[in-house]
Amino acid sequence: MTTDTSARYVTEGEAFDRDMSYIPDRVTAEPGRSRDPFGGEELDVPTWPVEPGRYRLVAAKACPWANRSIIVRNLLGLEHVISLGLAAPVHDARSWTFDLDEDGRDPVLGIHRLQEAYFNRFPDYPRGITVPALVDVETKQVVTNDFPWITHDLFFEWREHHRPDAPDLWPADRREEMEDVMQRIFTEVNNGVYRCGFAGSQQAYDDAYDRLWATMDWLEDRLAGRRYLMGDEITEADVRLFTTLVRFDAVYHGHFKCNRNRLTEMPALWGYARDLFQTPGFGETVDFGQIKAHYYVVHQDINPSRIVPKGPDPTVWATPHDRG
Amino acid sequence: MTTDTSARYVTEGEAFDRDMSYIPDRVTAEPGRSRDPFGGEELDVPTWPVEPGRYRLVAAKACPWANRSIIVRNLLGLEHVISLGLAAPVHDARSWTFDLDEDGRDPVLGIHRLQEAYFNRFPDYPRGITVPALVDVETKQVVTNDFPWITHDLFFEWREHHRPDAPDLWPADRREEMEDVMQRIFTEVNNGVYRCGFAGSQQAYDDAYDRLWATMDWLEDRLAGRRYLMGDEITEADVRLFTTLVRFDAVYHGHFKCNRNRLTEMPALWGYARDLFQTPGFGETVDFGQIKAHYYVVHQDINPSRIVPKGPDPTVWATPHDRG
Repeated sequence: MTTDTSARYVTEGEAFDRDMSYIPDRVTAEPGRSRDPFGGEELDVPTWPVEPGRYRLVAAKACPWANRSIIVRNLLGLEHVISLGLAAPVHDARSWTFDLDEDGRDPVLGIHRLQEAYFNRFPDYPRGITVPALVDVETKQVVTNDFPWITHDLFFEWREHHRPDAPDLWPADRREEMEDVMQRIFTEVNNGVYRCGFAGSQQAYDDAYDRLWATMDWLEDRLAGRRYLMGDEITEADVRLFTTLVRFDAVYHGHFKCNRNRLTEMPALWGYARDLFQTPGFGETVDFGQIKAHYYVVHQDINPSRIVPKGPDPTVWATPHDRG
Repeated sequence: MTTDTSARYVTEGEAFDRDMSYIPDRVTAEPGRSRDPFGGEELDVPTWPVEPGRYRLVAAKACPWANRSIIVRNLLGLEHVISLGLAAPVHDARSWTFDLDEDGRDPVLGIHRLQEAYFNRFPDYPRGITVPALVDVETKQVVTNDFPWITHDLFFEWREHHRPDAPDLWPADRREEMEDVMQRIFTEVNNGVYRCGFAGSQQAYDDAYDRLWATMDWLEDRLAGRRYLMGDEITEADVRLFTTLVRFDAVYHGHFKCNRNRLTEMPALWGYARDLFQTPGFGETVDFGQIKAHYYVVHQDINPSRIVPKGPDPTVWATPHDRG
């Protein structure tokens, strides 16, 4: 698995700024409309029809943004209508690849680089090749890589195909507060750890670190008084927080210098994270070996040796959480 | 404080190999002889006389090898006979400097770079400019930088000048075992953390990590059953282990990838380390800010951004250790 040394994540002197421009298409139950009662009006982006068997979700176990979509697909029981392709943890500067598959090709799409599916759609696609990506199997074209909408639409648009006891991941009566919680988690935690790790100056790092820990303390407090972020039931907000927490001690603590505490030192957050890890749909999507390989090998500008740490011990994730 | 980007600590493909060739001179009570009853015969290296006020110990709070000598000087009460100069945490590729002092010069030696004292002794000195270094104040020449012998001789040769209640750091009745313990601590822990951090290949790192943790587990076990390494009293072996433990969570855990556990997760070792930290002579020699600045700024080949992490919280060192 060669990696291109030209990939750079840190811009000297600058704070990390995530490019949030994605292919904005949506997959919806009705053409041109979303079923989400919160803002479920006409959409001004291209829509594709909900259709069992038509799409392949391409994810990577290494990537937290892709991990969300794997978990939501599991929780909702959508495995039988949307297939899953998994890219290898170590990609090069051009693309995620299917190095884990036989002959290095995705068995359904037949491609080696996910980039091919992007180029099938837009021959001059100018942005990063990201996961998750929803791919139209017949044309092998990427439909969308807009990760927050992918999980949103798996819930609202694919409802007819959910398993009967699927959780209500977007409870209407707590929606407004949940959007605020998710927004804060995104900017301060999900992306906050990257803002620490890819900071191009001490000042940018210090700022990101202070923001991260202010929100970690707020979450610790919030989760001391309730089992999940929005109350007694798992929601989308929990999925979004979990994918960062599960990577925290393995990569963000050391590699991204988020080292005020280990997650294991935050009693409520650590119990909460294990509670989710041990819930069907979550833990089986986590591969600590792939997670560590991805971060430590791909980010050569912050780990030039590409050596992957052996620690920490992942078996602690199976210990009792006492939150039931 | 500029740092030369040519400094390299990692050799690709190779294990880290510490250069252990030092200026071998000794300071002894009798010319040409050591008073150490264990091997206290004729010495085949140049000896300098014990003489109050003649020498200046140049150390740096950042450096674990130098930290030993500061602690031993404190414990034995030698402050009134050997003065102490402290170099700044961030050195360049050529030398430690006196950037912390007024005008950037040591107030006694009047030099900016410690290198000058090495060159006064050997104009073509070809090796690294290291601390601790014992300097003859009048000639401004380095006498020796052979760190294990510096603390050894502070004990055996300067006895007339120890304070009356100075501890017996080298108990004769446990000497043989203590030498074995110190040897294991040196190769597996003191230098072992560097062998993890400066490994030039995954294999070299994995080997160093396994050796480090095998000995950390052995120490945890040993210290579960006794207050100090050799029993009820502090010895030189404790000083040598302490200087690595006190840096463990601040730098070795993340920067050197020694991340199986934090020190705070090893109950006996963590209690033991705090016990020593809170003993007069130890804690006041520790400056976490200088320690972190040194490792994260100087080792650019493993931390190119030179960003210094804000964590972890050092106030935990003041918590009760319950080992009395």
